[in-house]
Amino acid sequence: MKQKMKIVVLNPNSSEEMTHAIARSARKYAQNRFEVLAITDNGAPEFIDYPEDVAKATKDMMQIIKDHEYIADAFVIACHCDPNVKLLRQISKKPVIGIGEASMRLAAMLGARFSVITTDLHSVTQKYELIHEYGLERYCASVRVRDKSIEDEMEAYEQAARKAIEEDLAEVIVLGCAGLCEMAEELTKRLKVPVLDGVVCGLILAEGMVNAGYRTSKVRFYAGKNDL
Amino acid sequence: MKQKMKIVVLNPNSSEEMTHAIARSARKYAQNRFEVLAITDNGAPEFIDYPEDVAKATKDMMQIIKDHEYIADAFVIACHCDPNVKLLRQISKKPVIGIGEASMRLAAMLGARFSVITTDLHSVTQKYELIHEYGLERYCASVRVRDKSIEDEMEAYEQAARKAIEEDLAEVIVLGCAGLCEMAEELTKRLKVPVLDGVVCGLILAEGMVNAGYRTSKVRFYAGKNDL
Amino acid sequence: MKQKMKIVVLNPNSSEEMTHAIARSARKYAQNRFEVLAITDNGAPEFIDYPEDVAKATKDMMQIIKDHEYIADAFVIACHCDPNVKLLRQISKKPVIGIGEASMRLAAMLGARFSVITTDLHSVTQKYELIHEYGLERYCASVRVRDKSIEDEMEAYEQAARKAIEEDLAEVIVLGCAGLCEMAEELTKRLKVPVLDGVVCGLILAEGMVNAGYRTSKVRFYAGKNDL
Amino acid sequence: MKQKMKIVVLNPNSSEEMTHAIARSARKYAQNRFEVLAITDNGAPEFIDYPEDVAKATKDMMQIIKDHEYIADAFVIACHCDPNVKLLRQISKKPVIGIGEASMRLAAMLGARFSVITTDLHSVTQKYELIHEYGLERYCASVRVRDKSIEDEMEAYEQAARKAIEEDLAEVIVLGCAGLCEMAEELTKRLKVPVLDGVVCGLILAEGMVNAGYRTSKVRFYAGKNDL
Amino acid sequence: MKQKMKIVVLNPNSSEEMTHAIARSARKYAQNRFEVLAITDNGAPEFIDYPEDVAKATKDMMQIIKDHEYIADAFVIACHCDPNVKLLRQISKKPVIGIGEASMRLAAMLGARFSVITTDLHSVTQKYELIHEYGLERYCASVRVRDKSIEDEMEAYEQAARKAIEEDLAEVIVLGCAGLCEMAEELTKRLKVPVLDGVVCGLILAEGMVNAGYRTSKVRFYAGKNDL
Amino acid sequence: MKQKMKIVVLNPNSSEEMTHAIARSARKYAQNRFEVLAITDNGAPEFIDYPEDVAKATKDMMQIIKDHEYIADAFVIACHCDPNVKLLRQISKKPVIGIGEASMRLAAMLGARFSVITTDLHSVTQKYELIHEYGLERYCASVRVRDKSIEDEMEAYEQAARKAIEEDLAEVIVLGCAGLCEMAEELTKRLKVPVLDGVVCGLILAEGMVNAGYRTSKVRFYAGKNDL
Repeated sequence: MKQKMKIVVLNPNSSEEMTHAIARSARKYAQNRFEVLAITDNGAPEFIDYPEDVAKATKDMMQIIKDHEYIADAFVIACHCDPNVKLLRQISKKPVIGIGEASMRLAAMLGARFSVITTDLHSVTQKYELIHEYGLERYCASVRVRDKSIEDEMEAYEQAARKAIEEDLAEVIVLGCAGLCEMAEELTKRLKVPVLDGVVCGLILAEGMVNAGYRTSKVRFYAGKNDL
Repeated sequence: MKQKMKIVVLNPNSSEEMTHAIARSARKYAQNRFEVLAITDNGAPEFIDYPEDVAKATKDMMQIIKDHEYIADAFVIACHCDPNVKLLRQISKKPVIGIGEASMRLAAMLGARFSVITTDLHSVTQKYELIHEYGLERYCASVRVRDKSIEDEMEAYEQAARKAIEEDLAEVIVLGCAGLCEMAEELTKRLKVPVLDGVVCGLILAEGMVNAGYRTSKVRFYAGKNDL
Repeated sequence: MKQKMKIVVLNPNSSEEMTHAIARSARKYAQNRFEVLAITDNGAPEFIDYPEDVAKATKDMMQIIKDHEYIADAFVIACHCDPNVKLLRQISKKPVIGIGEASMRLAAMLGARFSVITTDLHSVTQKYELIHEYGLERYCASVRVRDKSIEDEMEAYEQAARKAIEEDLAEVIVLGCAGLCEMAEELTKRLKVPVLDGVVCGLILAEGMVNAGYRTSKVRFYAGKNDL
Repeated sequence: MKQKMKIVVLNPNSSEEMTHAIARSARKYAQNRFEVLAITDNGAPEFIDYPEDVAKATKDMMQIIKDHEYIADAFVIACHCDPNVKLLRQISKKPVIGIGEASMRLAAMLGARFSVITTDLHSVTQKYELIHEYGLERYCASVRVRDKSIEDEMEAYEQAARKAIEEDLAEVIVLGCAGLCEMAEELTKRLKVPVLDGVVCGLILAEGMVNAGYRTSKVRFYAGKNDL
Repeated sequence: MKQKMKIVVLNPNSSEEMTHAIARSARKYAQNRFEVLAITDNGAPEFIDYPEDVAKATKDMMQIIKDHEYIADAFVIACHCDPNVKLLRQISKKPVIGIGEASMRLAAMLGARFSVITTDLHSVTQKYELIHEYGLERYCASVRVRDKSIEDEMEAYEQAARKAIEEDLAEVIVLGCAGLCEMAEELTKRLKVPVLDGVVCGLILAEGMVNAGYRTSKVRFYAGKNDL
Repeated sequence: MKQKMKIVVLNPNSSEEMTHAIARSARKYAQNRFEVLAITDNGAPEFIDYPEDVAKATKDMMQIIKDHEYIADAFVIACHCDPNVKLLRQISKKPVIGIGEASMRLAAMLGARFSVITTDLHSVTQKYELIHEYGLERYCASVRVRDKSIEDEMEAYEQAARKAIEEDLAEVIVLGCAGLCEMAEELTKRLKVPVLDGVVCGLILAEGMVNAGYRTSKVRFYAGKNDL
């Protein structure tokens, strides 16, 4: 009997609270179609903000991939700055999807231009770097940060998104942090445009690639020297 | 009881033979997860090669979308030059995915660079136009046409792909025509790199977007004046 | 005796009023050098705003081209979103010029950066798409929409243009709708920078190409399967 | 009585032979519509190949513009590397058109991709610089140099163009030197694709801009400090 | 005995006051490592603002290069619009560095995005042209002009820079005029981000290239016809 | 008394032989101007080829930076794929230069277009990724790999470079691996174009930045959460 598909959703942050939110979002999307293994990188900082945080998270991220290589059908890296995605693609034989890339590529197919709304000023520039890396400049209306003086988080992000829609002419909103995933539904209702949560977008691609039997190409760029 | 998901796979070419091949590929991917309605644009030319062919196909494409708007959960436009995708996105409330865009965006996540292999010289330039439109230049190793003097079609495309991999350093191959969809599996085996069939790639995105409840943004670009 | 040059200026909108304005602008430019045939697409919506409007206009646009293929020396498509220009280029043997493309390419030779001023918010994103398609990002200072609360149309566009010049550092203004063609002269006086009307820009290129004997290349991209 | 339009075609090379060829091409295009003043930059090197050659030609180019500012309606700079075009645009109040820019912008409207054929290897890189400056990368199939071992010049350029059409998929050919202008007609016949001569392309734009009353914007970039 | 390195810092403006400021900055950087020859282009306008000013400066710039070819080890062109840099690179056998290019390339290695602050509105567009020429769009946060109504120059530039940092998210500031070189130190203190002076940046590259024995490539683009 | 400048040249590969070659190149460039500390990452694989190799090298790279933060004036990361450069820039207060970025940015100032010659096919795509990241596409003529069947390494790289110069029109050659640094001088002689060694290029920038007192901007992108 064919086994149920298993997708590992790896939270590179060590915040268990965030992992729970991610797991809830992921399972809501998964329904009964596949099993979600939400795994926290316990060796990582609570929140990944800077390259050094990524470096601290790397060892455990690699170990998690290796430990689940024969169990998982695909991996979703649940941090919107796509930390170590290329590295993990190289060491695994299964599809590895970053939620930043997934959400922004899908956004480009749901409206003419998207805006990313994010938590902190320093991550705005990080988003621009990602957008350049993925060649998505032409689809990006803006990257906006919430106003931290607004106490209610939902309202703060709603306001940032609304400015993006009205002033920057965004037609789709991308949530710029895995921790915001549970806001997608409510913000979609309030804003009346698609609000994309990277965890769901990552799962869309991961599930589909597993169903299709697609795997990372192992010639050259992602080849690697060693078997697992 | 929740109804089974239904995805309309619209073949803008009037070739029934091609629709059958597309339907077989689509159903193989769909398994029991969703129902595939493969529909031929009978008013279209047998094969869409040029803008005029697209124009001839347009009226029926619109009608098919309108006729299935309340039945279908999503639409996949099964022609690799993505004819009328923006138009259909505007007139439908459901996700509309072009297989050219779907296959090339997925290719960018399965290897560092992809090549498209295609049927005819005139379509090579059409692919370059699409690649520019989608901002994918930086992921494209080349667009190659099969050698028509090679009688065996599979061998002809295999050779084109092999040159793309060896000479242009492609790591992923994209099949540049819906009619080639059934070659993906065999070519993947022969070439040992991912060979993407747009029909499957389109379904990955369509199915996922339906599962996620994502729909085209209806502010501005895809708004349209009239309800269906 | 050599016949007088004839240029068909095709208004893809069905507004006769707009056709009259276009015809007046065109004839003023034409003087006695060539004859202007201003033709309304009667099968089209009054104003082309969305892809569906373009789709409705297509059949008659093709017919008008075919009917005038042996009479006209060139065609100018008088709608600033350049609807069906590639299609018509493929079906005709004569030069076919879109006024959006014409006006923005000329703008790039009359100042360092241009802004487009346009009628409605939804067309702003359409302009960005065109600018991307033509590779003109580096020449574009902004796309601005008039303030609809200003009753006097001329004043509304003047204000939008003035902001483009002062805040976005535009040096040339492009009128983003064929219907605005008769404002060019007055706005040029008020703003003291070149204000380009697409109808005139389209005729500059069409007339020149006819004089030079230039015709669309018929290898590959615009080849087409059938003679007219 | 309105005076006949006068366009100065400035040959920045001091080769009189080249000026004669340019003048013949220009007058053939001009017919009776405007007067052509073909002027040689006698202070320049015989052929402009390198920046130093441009520097030597500059003083006289400026003087020629100033001397003809009140006589000429527009200026065409008849050297395909567009030497000093921005400078001359700044010092004149009349339209100033470079034949490199003119020919490549027109080429983009006559086929999907163009190739430039040129005289010498060192000018190939110069063309790439121009193509980058004008944002035309996406329309450029290649820049090719003739094979100097082929004695017959026409045949050498024909061969370079043919390779561009067949191997690089060019659909339009741009002659990369003003001195080649008289080959355009014959090469068009042989190659059966549009072969654009920059002198004619420059005149198309210059004549049209004069007819339309368009002049270089004098805010900021081309403003300059002094009146002539 | 090995001679001390000599770098000519050529001020293309004829302002002696500016040359003195440039010389002080240059010598402060040079310490005892190399000798600075600060040379004023006496034939130039006091301040280079427009292409015509560059044209007037050209002859003496070339002469200064030729006069110092055997004395100097490298040349730094001390005007932030990089006038004639390509020309001088072609006529000299020694490295020739423009301070605009030097400062913006270094800025890209000291922070994610930089802003240029400059003297006048017309130079803003000139900076954008340079940024396009050098392919640095993706590193540029903005180009800002000082507020001329602020009497104290330092304060005016500080304010412009502060807006660039806070509103445009610049992380590095580039001084957009050689005349501002002596402000770098004080502005760095006030703004707490790197503030780059082009003269120093140009010398970093010139000194290093001399130490490394690097010289401009003399195949093709910078080859030139004549020896000095 | 002012202390002598110290630059740490960090070899992220664990090959001591490579470190020696790097140290010899670095000291030859340094002369007496600064002290070179060439440090091997002993925890790294012998040669860094793939992301996993970088991951293995990271911990020690960070430690080396931290251990030398108060000793070193700047850091040069001596591996041409610029591993961890952004990370190290974030954790250090001193300039951190990657030799890939340094060599390619300098190449753009020494000729119109450069080619990178490299060791293995898989690194060709890595170079294209870097070139995209740094926005240097427009300066890149090609990336070429040596022919491994040529036994003599120098000859193999010479041949690759020669093809780049003759067929791809490169004017400057960039050595695509730190291990090739000692070939620069000989290849420069043979090829008669500048052949840039990244170690020297990195030192040019590092030394200059130290002399100028330039340090990485610590607002946002490279800010980091913790002091060392």
